[in-house]
Amino acid sequence: MLIEKKHPQKAIVLLSGGLDSATTLAIAERESDSVLALTFDYGQKHAIETQAACAIAELWNTPRRLVGIDLRQFGGSALTTDEIAVPRSGGGKITEGAEIPVTYVPARNTIFLSYALALAEVEQADAIYIGVNALDYSGYPDCRPEFVRAFQSLANLATRRAVEGSPVKILTPLIDMTKAEIITLGAKMGVDYSLTVSCYDPDESGAACGACDSCHLRRKGFTEAGISDPTRYIGATNK
Amino acid sequence: MLIEKKHPQKAIVLLSGGLDSATTLAIAERESDSVLALTFDYGQKHAIETQAACAIAELWNTPRRLVGIDLRQFGGSALTTDEIAVPRSGGGKITEGAEIPVTYVPARNTIFLSYALALAEVEQADAIYIGVNALDYSGYPDCRPEFVRAFQSLANLATRRAVEGSPVKILTPLIDMTKAEIITLGAKMGVDYSLTVSCYDPDESGAACGACDSCHLRRKGFTEAGISDPTRYIGATNK
Repeated sequence: MLIEKKHPQKAIVLLSGGLDSATTLAIAERESDSVLALTFDYGQKHAIETQAACAIAELWNTPRRLVGIDLRQFGGSALTTDEIAVPRSGGGKITEGAEIPVTYVPARNTIFLSYALALAEVEQADAIYIGVNALDYSGYPDCRPEFVRAFQSLANLATRRAVEGSPVKILTPLIDMTKAEIITLGAKMGVDYSLTVSCYDPDESGAACGACDSCHLRRKGFTEAGISDPTRYIGATNK
Repeated sequence: MLIEKKHPQKAIVLLSGGLDSATTLAIAERESDSVLALTFDYGQKHAIETQAACAIAELWNTPRRLVGIDLRQFGGSALTTDEIAVPRSGGGKITEGAEIPVTYVPARNTIFLSYALALAEVEQADAIYIGVNALDYSGYPDCRPEFVRAFQSLANLATRRAVEGSPVKILTPLIDMTKAEIITLGAKMGVDYSLTVSCYDPDESGAACGACDSCHLRRKGFTEAGISDPTRYIGATNK
């Protein structure tokens, strides 16, 4: 007997413009009756990712909300202050997660999910998709499965929906996937990875540095997936 | 044997400008080595409370951060959209909490605490004070003790501090107090309640309507405490 999975009627998707969130959007578009993408301009150095998010949302005809939240006023991260440089060549930690790199933005996913929860309440959405994954990630504390579970527990109490018995579900379809698996899945679903931006420190033209944690993870993913990396890297000639 | 309570070394206090948060600030100033007040301009109709917060912080010489977050773009509350009026004369629910009034702002405390968590991380603060109380309150889901406990569980996982073994503590000194008890305590500690603003819908001069949920709770509190209410109400002559 086939047990039908209950799919979201309306879902909010956190869409950064990176490859994980682009893949997550494709999954949400397949699983949900209606989707609303939520993108944050939080003062990140790689603000070009918000333009990428726009292009990705347009590809799926997904309505999109851009929310400005100034995390530069708090600083404390290589991504939100000019005082800390984005490390190149493995300056941060990849995959092992034993150490939190300087690109960690304090409480970023907590803030993002809080806004998504507010938007879900207002838009009467029953699910929030977030493209965190716990294998090929940068070792941020707020990307871990236990963090997401704790946020789900909070969402089960925090809103009118919750009190009325239908709390918003936090969905993490990529949580157990490697970067290569994510890329393979997304490619099958028609995700255009040339539109996505992973680099933490792209140049003015949007070309990726090829050396930061996020570029390392992306390159490794494409290589392992056996799929050509469409990223335009600084100084490289993509074929 | 007296067991010494471990007091915060550095605390963030959510300071709205209302009487609960003003009392909480007084408690935090007494308990903590250093305090930083955090106030949000979130597009509330009663924006005059942010000026009140400023005056209250100055009274204690507390450094203060004002953060702008536009919750009007989401709406969904009588406090953040002109499309919904603030109810007068018991239009909302007081104390019983069985129904969530239209003044509920979707996920507001989740968003506020998320920002406080980010600021605590950056400022190396070990505690966040929030003046929620579960007795004389407006029935908002994100003022309940179980909500605060869930946020504590989240904070225990979400940040660098948490991973390093010293998560931020969420402190709610007013959680079990009636409004009258809060006022009595605050008055003893020197809180100047004439500086605080409770009304959800004050007039342009800052005079309180005297009829919204928040005014009802405040008036009842002062009456039960046997303390003269210093609030300037619309059309009333305060003596």
